[in-house]
Amino acid sequence: MNREELEVFLHEAFPQVARDFRVDDVAPNEITMRLLVDHRHLRPGGTVAGPSMFALADVSIYLAILAMVGPKALAVTTNCSIDFMRKPASGVDMIAHARLLKLGRVLAVGEVLMYSEGMADPVARASLTYSLPPAGQ
Amino acid sequence: MNREELEVFLHEAFPQVARDFRVDDVAPNEITMRLLVDHRHLRPGGTVAGPSMFALADVSIYLAILAMVGPKALAVTTNCSIDFMRKPASGVDMIAHARLLKLGRVLAVGEVLMYSEGMADPVARASLTYSLPPAGQ
Amino acid sequence: MNREELEVFLHEAFPQVARDFRVDDVAPNEITMRLLVDHRHLRPGGTVAGPSMFALADVSIYLAILAMVGPKALAVTTNCSIDFMRKPASGVDMIAHARLLKLGRVLAVGEVLMYSEGMADPVARASLTYSLPPAGQ
Amino acid sequence: MNREELEVFLHEAFPQVARDFRVDDVAPNEITMRLLVDHRHLRPGGTVAGPSMFALADVSIYLAILAMVGPKALAVTTNCSIDFMRKPASGVDMIAHARLLKLGRVLAVGEVLMYSEGMADPVARASLTYSLPPAGQ
Repeated sequence: MNREELEVFLHEAFPQVARDFRVDDVAPNEITMRLLVDHRHLRPGGTVAGPSMFALADVSIYLAILAMVGPKALAVTTNCSIDFMRKPASGVDMIAHARLLKLGRVLAVGEVLMYSEGMADPVARASLTYSLPPAGQ
Repeated sequence: MNREELEVFLHEAFPQVARDFRVDDVAPNEITMRLLVDHRHLRPGGTVAGPSMFALADVSIYLAILAMVGPKALAVTTNCSIDFMRKPASGVDMIAHARLLKLGRVLAVGEVLMYSEGMADPVARASLTYSLPPAGQ
Repeated sequence: MNREELEVFLHEAFPQVARDFRVDDVAPNEITMRLLVDHRHLRPGGTVAGPSMFALADVSIYLAILAMVGPKALAVTTNCSIDFMRKPASGVDMIAHARLLKLGRVLAVGEVLMYSEGMADPVARASLTYSLPPAGQ
Repeated sequence: MNREELEVFLHEAFPQVARDFRVDDVAPNEITMRLLVDHRHLRPGGTVAGPSMFALADVSIYLAILAMVGPKALAVTTNCSIDFMRKPASGVDMIAHARLLKLGRVLAVGEVLMYSEGMADPVARASLTYSLPPAGQ
């Protein structure tokens, strides 16, 4: 699936959250996503909420998988380990650079670096495992 | 801080999310929290969204720390590892049983089991590390 | 498998490491294991090495699974998240209390608390995921 | 510290394990380490043991930190999340490419990809957090 197909899928399958995200770029085993930071993602002091960064990491790996295997909504997150390393900048989007390290028959593993747009150092990193549905589903 | 003080603190410090959660019970190094599941926490099929479970785990350990050290808003999450093990039941709240395993000078570590209310088996587990502000802040 | 059967299996399947560990107790979905701390597990200052604690957590969940499903050597660790919280005491064994939170068709998830024998507070905690071989293997 | 200084430090501070590892290359915030795979690192079937891969990840981030801040033996691992993705090749060394994502006053965070020498796809990935001793120690 290319960038446009991923956007369409996201809006059809997850209409509640699709407006939060944008696919900036997609390549084999890699995706760049954007969290369109709005007041609803913020905590006092203007920092982006942890759950919003988790959501960004999660959707990035999910779409990176779908880009490779097609629109199978049934892949489910089984594990996420996330490190919050720096305070996000306020007033800017967050950019996630994600890549798949493994795309197996049963499990997929990916890792994500998240940046406040314009900052050189990453705000957070995450690694995620997805369980893939058996073939035919 | 007791249950009522934690609720007041949550509403004053994090008004955006306070209505999502309720403190059910608090004891030394332990807390029971509730995610008041609403349509905004759901994904297609009625399942509770991963970011909402992350938020529940995060706020549970945060308040378990504050219950012990007082209302210091500056503690920040540095790491979370979360395992999603079962599909949540639809139409019921999620209950988190959290406990602190370490409350040090610099770091606190806690673990959380999350259940769909009325289910015997846990839906998810998480472990989190918080960085604590230096004394005096 | 009971305690004796697990010990026999460990010595036959993993002779290199079996002498490091002892099964203290086993119950449905739970196991208590012991790292028989020797000079080869130590770091300068008498502290137990991180890799030895990782090994203790790993073998504990592995044997907890085998106790439930029988001697299938093919289960493999896919993820481990481990928190080191306190310095181990020197000169004593380490005790692991492990329990399975999920034993599914494809994945098993367990968590472990590790103590220096005689200490009340845990030295480390870990959560692990195992991938289980398809039925018939 | 450069490659030679790191090797000397490793042998002086951790003589028990120094013969297991070699520093292949070091650069600002990056290091390449080698696990000199020997029979004592293997499990039945010739696969490299999980604890040996954990040890490789751990020492890689540790030395990456020391390369930046000097020979301070007191940095301690507080968290490691590790994903085992593929079976290691037998009869070859394992190579770790590690980099620091954060080197703060109190915490350092790094990530590691581990390969069987000559294989294109990573065998394992890990992210680790180290707690750094206060200045002056």
